[in-house]
Amino acid sequence: MSLLESIRSPRDLRPLPPSELEKLAEEIREFLIDAITRSGGHLGPNLGVVELTIALHRVFDSPKDRILFDTGHQSYVHKLLTGRQDFDRFKNSGGLSGYPSRAESEHDVIENSHASTVLGYADGLAKANQRLGHTDRHVVAVTGDGALTGGMAWEALNNIAEATDRPVIIVVNDNERSYAPTIGGLANHLTTLRTNLRTTQGYERVLSWGKDTLQRTPVVGGPIYDALHGAKKGYKDASQPQGMFEDLGLKYIGPIDGHDIAAVESALRRARGFGGPIIVHCLTEKGRGYRPAELDEADHFHQVGAIDPITCEPLRPSTGVSWTSVFGKELVAIGHERPDVVAITAAMLQPVGLQAFAREFPGRIYDVGIAEQHAAVSAAGLATGGLHPVVAVYATFLNRAFDQVLMDCALHRCGVTFVLDRAGVTGTDGASHNGMWDLSILQVVPGLRIAAPRDADQLRAELREALDVADAPTVVRYPKAEVGPPIEAEERIGGVDVLLRTGPAGGAPEPDVLLIAVGTMASACLDAAALLTAEGLGATVVDPRWVKPVDPALLELAARHRLVVTVEDNGRVGGVGTAVAQALRAADIDVPTRELGIPQRFLDHAARAEILDEIGLTGPGIAAQTATFAKALTPDTVGGEQHDGS
Amino acid sequence: MSLLESIRSPRDLRPLPPSELEKLAEEIREFLIDAITRSGGHLGPNLGVVELTIALHRVFDSPKDRILFDTGHQSYVHKLLTGRQDFDRFKNSGGLSGYPSRAESEHDVIENSHASTVLGYADGLAKANQRLGHTDRHVVAVTGDGALTGGMAWEALNNIAEATDRPVIIVVNDNERSYAPTIGGLANHLTTLRTNLRTTQGYERVLSWGKDTLQRTPVVGGPIYDALHGAKKGYKDASQPQGMFEDLGLKYIGPIDGHDIAAVESALRRARGFGGPIIVHCLTEKGRGYRPAELDEADHFHQVGAIDPITCEPLRPSTGVSWTSVFGKELVAIGHERPDVVAITAAMLQPVGLQAFAREFPGRIYDVGIAEQHAAVSAAGLATGGLHPVVAVYATFLNRAFDQVLMDCALHRCGVTFVLDRAGVTGTDGASHNGMWDLSILQVVPGLRIAAPRDADQLRAELREALDVADAPTVVRYPKAEVGPPIEAEERIGGVDVLLRTGPAGGAPEPDVLLIAVGTMASACLDAAALLTAEGLGATVVDPRWVKPVDPALLELAARHRLVVTVEDNGRVGGVGTAVAQALRAADIDVPTRELGIPQRFLDHAARAEILDEIGLTGPGIAAQTATFAKALTPDTVGGEQHDGS
Repeated sequence: MSLLESIRSPRDLRPLPPSELEKLAEEIREFLIDAITRSGGHLGPNLGVVELTIALHRVFDSPKDRILFDTGHQSYVHKLLTGRQDFDRFKNSGGLSGYPSRAESEHDVIENSHASTVLGYADGLAKANQRLGHTDRHVVAVTGDGALTGGMAWEALNNIAEATDRPVIIVVNDNERSYAPTIGGLANHLTTLRTNLRTTQGYERVLSWGKDTLQRTPVVGGPIYDALHGAKKGYKDASQPQGMFEDLGLKYIGPIDGHDIAAVESALRRARGFGGPIIVHCLTEKGRGYRPAELDEADHFHQVGAIDPITCEPLRPSTGVSWTSVFGKELVAIGHERPDVVAITAAMLQPVGLQAFAREFPGRIYDVGIAEQHAAVSAAGLATGGLHPVVAVYATFLNRAFDQVLMDCALHRCGVTFVLDRAGVTGTDGASHNGMWDLSILQVVPGLRIAAPRDADQLRAELREALDVADAPTVVRYPKAEVGPPIEAEERIGGVDVLLRTGPAGGAPEPDVLLIAVGTMASACLDAAALLTAEGLGATVVDPRWVKPVDPALLELAARHRLVVTVEDNGRVGGVGTAVAQALRAADIDVPTRELGIPQRFLDHAARAEILDEIGLTGPGIAAQTATFAKALTPDTVGGEQHDGS
Repeated sequence: MSLLESIRSPRDLRPLPPSELEKLAEEIREFLIDAITRSGGHLGPNLGVVELTIALHRVFDSPKDRILFDTGHQSYVHKLLTGRQDFDRFKNSGGLSGYPSRAESEHDVIENSHASTVLGYADGLAKANQRLGHTDRHVVAVTGDGALTGGMAWEALNNIAEATDRPVIIVVNDNERSYAPTIGGLANHLTTLRTNLRTTQGYERVLSWGKDTLQRTPVVGGPIYDALHGAKKGYKDASQPQGMFEDLGLKYIGPIDGHDIAAVESALRRARGFGGPIIVHCLTEKGRGYRPAELDEADHFHQVGAIDPITCEPLRPSTGVSWTSVFGKELVAIGHERPDVVAITAAMLQPVGLQAFAREFPGRIYDVGIAEQHAAVSAAGLATGGLHPVVAVYATFLNRAFDQVLMDCALHRCGVTFVLDRAGVTGTDGASHNGMWDLSILQVVPGLRIAAPRDADQLRAELREALDVADAPTVVRYPKAEVGPPIEAEERIGGVDVLLRTGPAGGAPEPDVLLIAVGTMASACLDAAALLTAEGLGATVVDPRWVKPVDPALLELAARHRLVVTVEDNGRVGGVGTAVAQALRAADIDVPTRELGIPQRFLDHAARAEILDEIGLTGPGIAAQTATFAKALTPDTVGGEQHDGS
């Protein structure tokens, strides 16, 4: 039995002597490299927090003490130390979640994967402990330097710092390889100078490397990084408690070498005994102990697919083209044609496909940090100033900026285009990554228009149409998937593409069912139509292209059918289906409508295809549900029985 | 002609000598006191920015230079100086808006009344100026010390500070009478010490008064105030450029006496010439020049109704009881019964009715600052820690916390109760204050439950029911209005109160129309039912009490009617009406439904009653629209014609 296998709970960690702890850390790294290169997942961040997590669980007594991980993708080591060492179906159905999960363990407190929340949660827990007299329970919030750029983090710091007698231990896991490697590197090196781990020559090297990288990269972490790392102050000041935190009234311990278990433990024990809010600033190396990650400056190992651990080649090479890359390329083409187009990312340059645009137009890309609110409101400012910004974010993260889309963009009639990647079911990243909300909450925004492309050609076309709208916000949304083959339209009525008309077998003037396929659901709807036709139910399949506002041509088409079924990769409640039904009612067209979409609950993690199959958003699923709807209607209302073509 | 009347545009200000400027300031104060005590409005804040606004318009060249006002209620003086001096129907239909309005003037840039947005907008405008080479156009963001507690402000500061060559002039209007009078007062006095306007004795007095007030008041602005005002540093350090801004890399000028036009102009000119991001910290006195406001420590003159300018008695005393006060009293009663109940406000203790609770239970109230995100996420933490938090906010401001309600509260199944004041049409505060979004966007949140009380008894009952839900977020929403007389139910079916059944004249087993009255719409629906009955159309009026989830009893009732009409004080799109229609479709009940609500556009300012009348949410309006719906249906479907009782 390995040492790691002998650790069933955090309690088992405490008797271990220093030499065993080092061995354990090594075993954990081996385990992670083996398991995550096989399954895919967040490799780099977890290799960086091995010692930190061991120290946390030795010093604090979870679950009585609460250890909270911000953006829980840094919780794999925590899982290994709290009785979860079976990574066989990691992130897939039946396997462990890629984030903390309260269903898995009493040691998991927050399972949200949206960033910057952990300090707010910790403030609430600390207030509860104070109110209930639980003076022996500690609250430990593990956050990152990136998460501090989010406004929620600042709101929380302001509140946490307010009460000097309400303890919250804030561990800032500051990894050298974040968006701004320079500055993390500098701060780290300044520490190591103090602890005599490195040489003074190294200090100077890092300093000049820092300057180069700053000039090269359009994207840096921003002044919050500078302040955190004392970069503006030079060596002497930076080795003092950080001014910004001091100004907020927060005690500060650090910087600490996050890979020195004894040093981290010592700092955490001091923090535990302090009795008030306190920051423990730990410097860690992302990817530590895995040579390819250590050597990689571009942070490709932050999250990996399944790869060969030696060659780092993908185990299951993708053969197709992602929606993200189609967008990225087209935006570069547009950038060459339209100098007014600029792009904004919220700390996600590469994942949303903007790296080529940033390379081509370094003066026209803005990384605002993990700050979706600022992405939207500064876009409104850019639009008011005469430019057309494209804000590319994950669909689920736009929720953070709902008020800014509504008030700052729509109320002000700003031409801002939001490109929502990872819209719909994303799958293995679990409930908080699914982009199943946008088509619903954005329905209420006056003037806003939404496009859902069905294939690469339509993505390119609809992106350009969106960029032609100068007096209202526009949205283009697509999933985390490979883009399928092109789907031709038979004709366009109004703005609606008619993709297919089958039957009716009985010779009626129009088929029975109108299938309204939202975006990427087109292909499944075409499959469904074929199955329905085989059962004698005629179907028209249309792609409305722009799903908000509802196209009047869609209403006319609907009125000529006996049943309307909308199909969308979005929550069923309040999405395109309900918008179409509402528009029909408002036009006094009382054709029965039914909507297919994602059930309105938080989905468990599983592969996208698995989930789509489970919730019936496949050809056979759509056909079966549509047939059931049709049968439930009376023969008077829908022609199901009469048209039975058998 | 007065001096003020001679000012038609900011240009007219520039030739004036200092003595004339003082006279102008005096005339503006007289005008404001006269006009705002007559119409009602934000008196205190505007009396505080008279000199500051004059200086801004003398130094900068609006509209080429952009002057942006955060939470635009401090823009009255700006209106007076930009050609808008007719305050006769101020905030009412046909009159000037109470906020900046681009329809009114080219000098108005942002008309949003949600706080903390101005820095983000300014960042975008500055980026556009830089990109387009408009080096001669300045961007001036006027914000307040309170707004800096909002996360958006911090996201923006981080981005603004990033580029040292992209000028943004940030004017912090720091008024002594904000939520934390102590700290603002201290900073102000420290400045006046430097400018020799006051005495050293005064300094010490302010210091000790500060300590008292801090201990007395549960609500302070928090450490961001402290940092801003150097309160933690003592006199010497506080007179230096502020550490926190310096750490962020922002240049800082101040503190400046905001009532000394020459001093403010001088600071603004230096800032204008600086060529990079810079903060100008101005200290002003809220209510300056109006004796009752100056003497009032509780900041009652922040916003006033129409009052007698001498006695300060209301001109139109309210005779009724507000929804807010019913809530406030009931929460105190609950607080005595349940020690686990705590309350959270986002810098709105008094307006949301929590002042009595705060007085009664000073250890159980948390003011988080203008930080709705933190209100929601810290509530999740409090709930996880074993308490039941009540988060009381204006309905429109909950939009800021949508992601936190969804991910931090609902995903984590936290028992948090959100009490939404000012839900529905609010009226005179204009588009961004109407609470017309909550019933729509909250529909998508799994597990969340929403109550809309129809009268005071129901508010008390539903609040208690909400507080009994421990494993999901709950919402109770009500309007900015006086609560009407009690409305008794004839019976309760499931959770649905049947308020009225009028016979069908034709003797059919059930009446024709089911009117589903959401919350405060009950009274208008009862009026409508009476009118419909007189026209021979039978009606059942029900109050579902809890509008999410849709009560199965409601579906059964609906199935027994020929037409269902929902009536809600919320946007028509995606609200209770569409939820009911969707639930009916899902149950294969194809009874025609129609929804009445607020049209899905940004409403112009006008009185609540005026707007409700205009959009048809009154007894006669509901009756007329319902009759039209009924007539549009075929006689087969609805019994309109047959039942004509005439």
